[in-house]
Amino acid sequence: MQADASLITPDAIRKVIRNNDYTGNTSGFAPGFVQANLVILPAQYAFDFLQFSQANPKSCPIIASSREAGVVDMPCVGKNIDIRTDLPRYRIFKNGQLIEEVTDIKAYWRDDLVTFLIGCSFSFEEALIAAGIEVRNITEHKNVPMYVTDQPCKSAGIFHANTVVSMRPMKPADAIRAIQICSRFPNVHGAPIHFGDPAAIGIKDINRPEFGDAVTINDGEIPVFWACGVTPQVAIVNAAPELCITHSPGHMLITDIPNSQMAAF
Amino acid sequence: MQADASLITPDAIRKVIRNNDYTGNTSGFAPGFVQANLVILPAQYAFDFLQFSQANPKSCPIIASSREAGVVDMPCVGKNIDIRTDLPRYRIFKNGQLIEEVTDIKAYWRDDLVTFLIGCSFSFEEALIAAGIEVRNITEHKNVPMYVTDQPCKSAGIFHANTVVSMRPMKPADAIRAIQICSRFPNVHGAPIHFGDPAAIGIKDINRPEFGDAVTINDGEIPVFWACGVTPQVAIVNAAPELCITHSPGHMLITDIPNSQMAAF
Repeated sequence: MQADASLITPDAIRKVIRNNDYTGNTSGFAPGFVQANLVILPAQYAFDFLQFSQANPKSCPIIASSREAGVVDMPCVGKNIDIRTDLPRYRIFKNGQLIEEVTDIKAYWRDDLVTFLIGCSFSFEEALIAAGIEVRNITEHKNVPMYVTDQPCKSAGIFHANTVVSMRPMKPADAIRAIQICSRFPNVHGAPIHFGDPAAIGIKDINRPEFGDAVTINDGEIPVFWACGVTPQVAIVNAAPELCITHSPGHMLITDIPNSQMAAF
Repeated sequence: MQADASLITPDAIRKVIRNNDYTGNTSGFAPGFVQANLVILPAQYAFDFLQFSQANPKSCPIIASSREAGVVDMPCVGKNIDIRTDLPRYRIFKNGQLIEEVTDIKAYWRDDLVTFLIGCSFSFEEALIAAGIEVRNITEHKNVPMYVTDQPCKSAGIFHANTVVSMRPMKPADAIRAIQICSRFPNVHGAPIHFGDPAAIGIKDINRPEFGDAVTINDGEIPVFWACGVTPQVAIVNAAPELCITHSPGHMLITDIPNSQMAAF
């Protein structure tokens, strides 16, 4: 395998992952291309989940869904995709409980499964960095800190959750620019939903995120909060469907869609 | 009935309509409030339709959907709404054929029906006029001209259609400003999808719209085309579900949502 050549395009990276030659996280892979969160559910839950996503687009922005139950390709986001093998790592949930992490889901595949791809913060972080704004979790080589708020999502069918947010500390001028930049990208969580006082959205301790790692907040910086793709995962745990398959955090589907194509304007 | 007092709020107007005291179109009613297109389908088609909308947000922007099959209120968009009575006029389609226009749908209501509300151009026309841009169909007291293009929507399940567009002629400087203004309103069709040469999107004769009325195009003006809420109606006729109920063109649901709240940024 010629690693350098193989890792140039999303298609080539997916092939390496498909062959189980890489099972790590996809942060920094295929710069410029959209990476997506994965949710796979039995068809009986598909309408409720799509309605939940529709009603909560900032935390659960749908990029694509499978055109019919049981299909494993996803031509609208990339060529030769097999959704069962093309992510490095998956999580299997039964009745809301995580039961296993696996590197492919062939053993779990069924003809009634429907796939949803959800926008991910990697895309807007790239846009922020391109604008010269420091993204602390990247500078510090950490997972972004994520917090469960007291802000309820709109419920839909069996799905309900409080909004989960990710946090990036910034100086006010950078936060203002970040609000402008992220407004252009509604399908990758869009503009922040809060900045400043963590308690105002029910966060008890900014140094103890429920998911990911705490990051440094310097003097003169304020925390800026974005709706986070972990929200639908919380909604799924709450709903406890008999089966649900997601990506493992950070182990995304790399699509053929350029990040620039996600800009709404 | 004190007509003036009654027609101040969306809630009061809906009550007048509910009592069949008004059955005309809602153009110009309750300025400042969102009016919505209506699509009601049996639950078996609901996932496909929501997926079609999700995949084609410019022509089919979903504002809200009923929280479960059979419910007739819609508290997320307004108080005391009864979706069976609160629009002035409805269209009943069976197997894709228009069979009747009615002023309420109580006789057709079933426990398996799911309601969708779709954004409408009234909201962005108000924003254009507020910015000093002439909207020709309003100036000329006509229905906006609408055309079936050769631009296919993304299909979903049984639903497929070519995009239908509405057209408003403008000077280039106004068109540029309109693109900026409408970009802020993705849930009411968003930015235009084309301007200039009608043939480039498969429109044969700009003076013969498939729906609505032709309007004057003055020297120095170019036609500007927006994705149109008639698109999902064409998709429904194509799909021919056993039952579908829509609003009659121009006879919308008036919601309690301020137009300003639809701005994405």
